[in-house]
Amino acid sequence: MKRPDPLVIGVAGGSGSGKTTVAQTILSRVGRNRIAFLQHDSYYKDLSGLPPTQQSEINFDHPDSLESDLLAQHIASLRNGTSVWVPIYDFSANRRTGDVFIVEPRSVILVEGILIFTEPKLRSMFDVKIFVDTDADLRFIRRLKRDIAERGRTTESVIQQYQATVRPMHLEFVEPSKRYADVIIPEGGHNAAALDMVVARIEALLK
Amino acid sequence: MKRPDPLVIGVAGGSGSGKTTVAQTILSRVGRNRIAFLQHDSYYKDLSGLPPTQQSEINFDHPDSLESDLLAQHIASLRNGTSVWVPIYDFSANRRTGDVFIVEPRSVILVEGILIFTEPKLRSMFDVKIFVDTDADLRFIRRLKRDIAERGRTTESVIQQYQATVRPMHLEFVEPSKRYADVIIPEGGHNAAALDMVVARIEALLK
Repeated sequence: MKRPDPLVIGVAGGSGSGKTTVAQTILSRVGRNRIAFLQHDSYYKDLSGLPPTQQSEINFDHPDSLESDLLAQHIASLRNGTSVWVPIYDFSANRRTGDVFIVEPRSVILVEGILIFTEPKLRSMFDVKIFVDTDADLRFIRRLKRDIAERGRTTESVIQQYQATVRPMHLEFVEPSKRYADVIIPEGGHNAAALDMVVARIEALLK
Repeated sequence: MKRPDPLVIGVAGGSGSGKTTVAQTILSRVGRNRIAFLQHDSYYKDLSGLPPTQQSEINFDHPDSLESDLLAQHIASLRNGTSVWVPIYDFSANRRTGDVFIVEPRSVILVEGILIFTEPKLRSMFDVKIFVDTDADLRFIRRLKRDIAERGRTTESVIQQYQATVRPMHLEFVEPSKRYADVIIPEGGHNAAALDMVVARIEALLK
């Protein structure tokens, strides 16, 4: 008997929307061992070949800074039952470490990333497209708190980056990609009613 | 053993959004015999006591034209395991016919209506709030087609009513109530991925 095709679920949303919390809640409620989990962030392009001055000009919030073709290949491989080697990125040096981690095929493939619904090729691979939608002021506040607490950034530098790239790229790429969503979840990870639905859908498939 | 509390699901959205198709799809996929189904439209106030000139001034798209307290009572009764008598409305005469239909309690109570998330009292009764969100131009086009085909209306009269009450009431009451939704479903009844989630959530409860 042929196994049913895996269900490919994409979780997108702006920076600070709560999409990571949504993905993590799905993983912990359904069970990490039952889901192949990929994050678009793992696929940042290696910039070590560029001189530092050029590296500093890269817009990391633009889709071109990600190797989305490789992510698409990995989704296709997992769907065909083949393990994939996901690159481990060094965000402080803007390069791939050369190390990888292995993701095994599962009946559910969960993919998380801000820009995963932007590229038509990637977008077409999802059976279920979930967009986590949170008001822009709340997203900024979350990002500000996180970058100060976890990354030792100053308020001024967070504001500068937000206005220079995060916000314009959100308006140009992320917000329009909401149109392709099958389901929009307001307020992200604390939305129990929505998470119950997503989990029930996955559990129904896994039974 | 005490039976679990029924799950109360609300489906709201603007006129022409596709919310009725969503509700009907849920009913036919889960089974009409397993769901207690209420529509806010059944609860329009009886205007037969008013002279025709005053009746014609009533804004039927305003929350005050509906007896939401009675709908809230009926949801509470069904939740407590008691059948309810739903009034049958005569839309051509703006009055209740005096006839009723009986709705029996079920493990799932599904409530549909444009304005069900507007009133705090009603809104607080839903365990899952689904808002069907469709662009305003598409909603108008659907309404125009339906009113011409099913109600013998002229294009001019549909436009007049849309601009006089439907659109202003949408902006004042319906659109802001989206903020309370747990899940937003774009494009309504033809959104299979979203409907699969809602149905899976209900089936999980009924098992």
